[in-house]
Amino acid sequence: MPRRHWEDFSPGQITDCGSRLVTREEIIAFAAEYDPQPMHLDEQAARGTLLGGLVASGWHSIGILMRMLSDDFIGRSNFLGSPGLDEVKWLAPLRPGERVSARATVLETRASRSRPDVGFVTFRLELLDAAGKPLLAMVLSPMFGRRPAGAASGAGQGAAGRP
Amino acid sequence: MPRRHWEDFSPGQITDCGSRLVTREEIIAFAAEYDPQPMHLDEQAARGTLLGGLVASGWHSIGILMRMLSDDFIGRSNFLGSPGLDEVKWLAPLRPGERVSARATVLETRASRSRPDVGFVTFRLELLDAAGKPLLAMVLSPMFGRRPAGAASGAGQGAAGRP
Repeated sequence: MPRRHWEDFSPGQITDCGSRLVTREEIIAFAAEYDPQPMHLDEQAARGTLLGGLVASGWHSIGILMRMLSDDFIGRSNFLGSPGLDEVKWLAPLRPGERVSARATVLETRASRSRPDVGFVTFRLELLDAAGKPLLAMVLSPMFGRRPAGAASGAGQGAAGRP
Repeated sequence: MPRRHWEDFSPGQITDCGSRLVTREEIIAFAAEYDPQPMHLDEQAARGTLLGGLVASGWHSIGILMRMLSDDFIGRSNFLGSPGLDEVKWLAPLRPGERVSARATVLETRASRSRPDVGFVTFRLELLDAAGKPLLAMVLSPMFGRRPAGAASGAGQGAAGRP
């Protein structure tokens, strides 16, 4: 399958990616390395916090989302990274044993003014729980390479949305 | 030392935290788990990318920043987590062998309208290279618990800024 270029994205496209069981062990391992707060590290201590039990670090939930997008979506495109991030909302706690999935919705696309071989795609990215409720939503505008003249399209007609 | 409460923060306060050497091994380990792009995983493949060599995942650089803040700052306060994040800018690549530090600047504080025991503090958080140049800047508005009546101050006069 040809890799997706900037031209293959258009507003309204929705891509659903992966499904992954989040374990207590990985929640604690991430927190021990990057976000050692009691609510992410220890069930007993977490019971006394606002959320009433062990929850994943918000940075861990972003990592899980990015990994699912990377495997199923970004890794199959001419992805060039992102200069920044507009907004993150942690909408509901991610608890151990949850099965999560990822969704990317294209909000807009724009060509780079300074680089004719590059374009930006603004996505709403969401981490969803097993019932489809968003736990995390963020707006990210990464760069993608544009299709060289004469190259094949990365997404067939009608197949651009859900792989 | 008493823990900091919401009342101990005020606009303009600057806190500098930690210093940490970022290794090639940890850059690759993080990327393999959460952001498996060639520019974060493999020196050879990274040479062909926009940044011309191995660089840390932007999510890893946020993790490093949060860990330093957590050890020196957030972990010594009545921190209650954050509902979201306003903005992230990845300003320059974080490469292996860089010695980084973290800085938190208070932009504003506001009491919660719905919860009298909680207040918000808006920070500009920066990850700096060894020369003091920002590699990453973000705006985060976490919640802190307010000081119970009669409790001791968490920051002595004049000591609120740099620990």
